[in-house]
Amino acid sequence: MSPFRFELLHQHGALRRGRYHTPHGTFETPCFAPVGTYAALRGLTPEQVRATGTELILANSYHLHVRPGAGRIQRLGGLHAFMGWDGPILTDSGGYQVFSLGGKVSIDDLGVTFRSIIDGSEHRCTPESVLTFQRQLGPDIAMVLDHCPPGDADAATLRIAHERTLHWARTARELHDRWGGSSRGQAVFGICQGGTDPELRAHAAQQLAALDFDGYAIGGLSVGETKTQMAVALAACIDHLPAGRIRYVMGIGQPDDLLAATAAGVDLFDCVIPTRHGRNHEAFGQGGTVLKLRNAQFADDPRPLVQGCGCYACRTFSRAYLRHLAVADEMLGGILLSLHNIHFLQDLLRSIRARAEQPD
Amino acid sequence: MSPFRFELLHQHGALRRGRYHTPHGTFETPCFAPVGTYAALRGLTPEQVRATGTELILANSYHLHVRPGAGRIQRLGGLHAFMGWDGPILTDSGGYQVFSLGGKVSIDDLGVTFRSIIDGSEHRCTPESVLTFQRQLGPDIAMVLDHCPPGDADAATLRIAHERTLHWARTARELHDRWGGSSRGQAVFGICQGGTDPELRAHAAQQLAALDFDGYAIGGLSVGETKTQMAVALAACIDHLPAGRIRYVMGIGQPDDLLAATAAGVDLFDCVIPTRHGRNHEAFGQGGTVLKLRNAQFADDPRPLVQGCGCYACRTFSRAYLRHLAVADEMLGGILLSLHNIHFLQDLLRSIRARAEQPD
Repeated sequence: MSPFRFELLHQHGALRRGRYHTPHGTFETPCFAPVGTYAALRGLTPEQVRATGTELILANSYHLHVRPGAGRIQRLGGLHAFMGWDGPILTDSGGYQVFSLGGKVSIDDLGVTFRSIIDGSEHRCTPESVLTFQRQLGPDIAMVLDHCPPGDADAATLRIAHERTLHWARTARELHDRWGGSSRGQAVFGICQGGTDPELRAHAAQQLAALDFDGYAIGGLSVGETKTQMAVALAACIDHLPAGRIRYVMGIGQPDDLLAATAAGVDLFDCVIPTRHGRNHEAFGQGGTVLKLRNAQFADDPRPLVQGCGCYACRTFSRAYLRHLAVADEMLGGILLSLHNIHFLQDLLRSIRARAEQPD
Repeated sequence: MSPFRFELLHQHGALRRGRYHTPHGTFETPCFAPVGTYAALRGLTPEQVRATGTELILANSYHLHVRPGAGRIQRLGGLHAFMGWDGPILTDSGGYQVFSLGGKVSIDDLGVTFRSIIDGSEHRCTPESVLTFQRQLGPDIAMVLDHCPPGDADAATLRIAHERTLHWARTARELHDRWGGSSRGQAVFGICQGGTDPELRAHAAQQLAALDFDGYAIGGLSVGETKTQMAVALAACIDHLPAGRIRYVMGIGQPDDLLAATAAGVDLFDCVIPTRHGRNHEAFGQGGTVLKLRNAQFADDPRPLVQGCGCYACRTFSRAYLRHLAVADEMLGGILLSLHNIHFLQDLLRSIRARAEQPD
């Protein structure tokens, strides 16, 4: 029997309150997963990440495959032991990285060939190879390879990427089955592409639903489209995804996007925003405003970043101190702001989950 | 009555086991204080620092005076509240920084004039001004201004620096008294200089002892002299310092130096070594060897840095993971190694204190 299960606990309109079961424990949904690209959230210990209320984290299989190598991590006991995180882990397939990190990329129907951004060496990703890497890494949830076209791709490119993504998804689904499916301890999620074209999005969702994945991701959003285009693309996917499976929008983390997407029925998110903004000395303030801590206005401000916030940074330090760390370029500044930003989003998700539990 | 008191608990040969009382609690001696130059240990939260067994930390009053300003920290409630450290804090006077950070420095009998390393602005430090800054900052222990000559200074320069340091110490001692002494919540320590000349060292210790400071520092060591020269200079000071007062050697943190100096009767140390080495991906290994984590030899090493070490890094991560973080240039690597290095030195100090409690 599969150790993976999406439990739908409550529904409030389209907003869903659920729980996802994995071999490394559960996470409550809607859920936000911060990103630890190289098997580490920048500057944060697993202990500190846990204290923000985080239950699931994401790592990038492409980066880890290049360095230190998926086989090496497997020999060292897998990703959980390697990075000291005993909760659920999800890895992406690397598709997004291959297409977004630049360098020479050549795509054919069987996979993609590209040069490493690290040492210029030639690599090839196929639907089979990315699942193999992820099987070696050992996260709870693996993603299929998708062809992620740029935000400004023309209709022909979108259609080719769409067809190829579906073709690759079928290949991945078959391999997952040959390996015994999720009962061997790893779930595999399909990814809907299709840009801002609702017809392609709907078709992708239908085709993937028929393949019966453990969960469904919606990729290729927040790449330059308008909020309305994002909402239309999301709705087109969601309409055709099975209600009993978890739905995951990749790469969004702005508070207003999280509010809109959960209201539309999305259960899971990941994004680098809280840690990247933190390292840039930017913090979420009351109501999702952004505080730029380098600004002189905070130099004598004795208040916490957000009044009433329970995060370690807000319980311990003033804006004036955080501003001092930003100006003095002390790494502790980015660390504390990253902690606060993740905690802020986890608080937002907690409030969304509470709303989902209210009578419809 | 003064809230400061050095309690001598045990003696084992010249090795002393004591306890220093401050308004922010006690610290056990021999004690090692890690350094948080800008009111932050690089990349570490106060919570993490506390978990290494650290009881006392050092901050640099020169840096804090330049940025964000001693008056600003005073308005924000003082250094303890500002940096979220509720234990004892010691600040140096800035003398070492003024003389070591380069730039144009001109010294006269009343003080020193120099250009800021940050913005080139002209500053002046006098025995009175450095105590004023430190009074504003509000650490438990403040240091007097000293003239710290370079390690290769000639005899004439050494003598002038020696005389000037004593003159400044008298000025500082008088000001400390006018302010009500340590009963108002801040202890002031004198500093013995004198390079490698045992006669100058002995004379400095005698003169400072006569001034009845709350504690005594020995400065100007570990600036290029041999181990023998260091030992001779140390012994010359210690012979003339009062047994009932705490003795502090500034700026040493190598395990063998800590062992030698405690055996000679020193009670207190500070050094940037554990955090600086940590950021350079160097870790203390078994017996004080140094592990360079960038080395390929650690790529598949599943062992902790030090078998049996109770620090968070050793309890949670392998050398292979720490090597991966070093190679991927992840900030978490430097953080974990800094934590380990501080914990390693605190363990060393714990073992030294235990030895001091054994029958002579």
